[in-house]
Amino acid sequence: MVKKLGLLYEGKAKKVYMTDEENILWIEYKDSATAFNGEKKATIVGKGRLNNEITSLLFSKLHQADVRNHFIQKLSATEQLVKKVTIIPLEVVVRNYVAGSLSKRLGVSEGTSLEKPLIEFYYKNDDLGDPLLLEDHIAILKLATSEQIAVLKESALKVNEILTQHFQSCNVRLVDFKLEFGMDSEGTILLADEISPDTCRLWDMDTNEKFDKDVFRRDLGSLTDAYETILQRLGGSVKCTK
Amino acid sequence: MVKKLGLLYEGKAKKVYMTDEENILWIEYKDSATAFNGEKKATIVGKGRLNNEITSLLFSKLHQADVRNHFIQKLSATEQLVKKVTIIPLEVVVRNYVAGSLSKRLGVSEGTSLEKPLIEFYYKNDDLGDPLLLEDHIAILKLATSEQIAVLKESALKVNEILTQHFQSCNVRLVDFKLEFGMDSEGTILLADEISPDTCRLWDMDTNEKFDKDVFRRDLGSLTDAYETILQRLGGSVKCTK
Ligand SMILES: Nc1ncnc2c1ncn2[C@@H]1O[C@H](COP(=O)(O)OP(=O)(O)OP(=O)(O)O)[C@@H](O)[C@H]1O
Ligand SMILES: Nc1ncnc2c1ncn2[C@@H]1O[C@H](COP(=O)(O)OP(=O)(O)OP(=O)(O)O)[C@@H](O)[C@H]1O
Ligand SMILES: [Mg+2]
Ligand SMILES: [Mg+2]
Repeated sequence: MVKKLGLLYEGKAKKVYMTDEENILWIEYKDSATAFNGEKKATIVGKGRLNNEITSLLFSKLHQADVRNHFIQKLSATEQLVKKVTIIPLEVVVRNYVAGSLSKRLGVSEGTSLEKPLIEFYYKNDDLGDPLLLEDHIAILKLATSEQIAVLKESALKVNEILTQHFQSCNVRLVDFKLEFGMDSEGTILLADEISPDTCRLWDMDTNEKFDKDVFRRDLGSLTDAYETILQRLGGSVKCTK
Repeated sequence: MVKKLGLLYEGKAKKVYMTDEENILWIEYKDSATAFNGEKKATIVGKGRLNNEITSLLFSKLHQADVRNHFIQKLSATEQLVKKVTIIPLEVVVRNYVAGSLSKRLGVSEGTSLEKPLIEFYYKNDDLGDPLLLEDHIAILKLATSEQIAVLKESALKVNEILTQHFQSCNVRLVDFKLEFGMDSEGTILLADEISPDTCRLWDMDTNEKFDKDVFRRDLGSLTDAYETILQRLGGSVKCTK
């Protein structure tokens, strides 16, 4: 069994620990919610468990569909083991419907369906406010080569196909989501970080009820109720925190 | 001689009049300066004349180099005739060095030279704050087809080559500039609007002294002195307003 060592990094949503295995990290999902680049903050008991459960289910699903990713195994309600990667500082956003910042940028109503999935790259850089990047900007910043960008896009589209269908079978619309990728010790690009209601927009297929972080951003009700709905629909174990 | 008819549109920098010729517009350059999406405003006597002179010289130069554009002739110190087009609501920005919003977006110092010219498209939409667009955004908004985008890029790069060399021969560095294009009555894409120190960043080749609208945006001294320097270096007639 892998042993947990010192804290490597504490982010807004997760703590990342080293282990006695060079290439393995121990992730702990926290009960904290943040939005608007950290401006809005709250502690939400149960959130860490829900995101750890959901992201574990989804990364396992992706493994089954041969999408190379960092997930190794769930350890406890709030912890999991992952392969260590060097994160490429890009947020890869896939959109099937217009929502959030895209709605504001284009002046197009939320919920408008897109003819084909849209991929956007944002610079993972809090100081700069995670700006939208053109592929030419990525080249200027030398964040990724054009070959790597092609791999990221192809993988992101594959993830979108798999998850869109999976959520659809649970009566959930996958509106958009954010992915992070990294390079493992052999230079292979792996899907990393998390895929959870914190990083996806998930709407009820019939009513468009929101089951994602917009519940927190826009004060739409109980975040844990929303995330538990997602976990339940995905067939995971539901343990009420109330 | 074409006859000036009613005002069609009054913008921040120019008045556009109809004429008795269906496909010809009469443009009058105003003595007003605006920046930051209209937040900063001033009347600057002589600016209209300088921009009308400079843009006339540059569009003539581009005609000579076979870049299809709207310019017909200069009428007076502040007026010119142009072919009427339906403006494509995109600001096509070409950059040879990092400056302005690109410097802020990427966190890269102003003046950093780019390995090759960078083309960016911004949505010409004041309400939305002229946001940066990906080509996929342009497709979603149906602002231009991918064939049209290719024409805009090719034309923008050609304009960049011609003007970079022309300014260089006047000891001026063409840092970046904004173009607008439109469709004439036959559906041909023409370069339109203006090319002036309002729409270019122009730095002295040796000292990097700024001779463009940044003088106004950043309160760097006399705007008309700066624009007169450009007109003089381009070989135009200089009539001091002081
Ligand atoms: N397999 C992995 N190897 C190395 N780092 C990872 C891996 N998966 C995720 N990470 C990184 O670990 C951190 C997770 O913490 P968290 O999501 O809380 O960060 P954050 O607050 O979003 O901040 P930021 O993502 O801006 O660093 C992120 O920086 C993420 O990119
Ligand atoms: N050949 C042309 N035919 C038709 N319209 C033109 C032509 N050339 C320029 N225009 C348009 O005329 C207007 C010129 O006015 P001005 O530059 O003052 O506008 P502005 O304040 O920049 O506002 P905006 O460009 O946002 O409309 C612009 O809208 C420009 O796009
Ligand atoms: Mg994160
Ligand atoms: Mg204008």
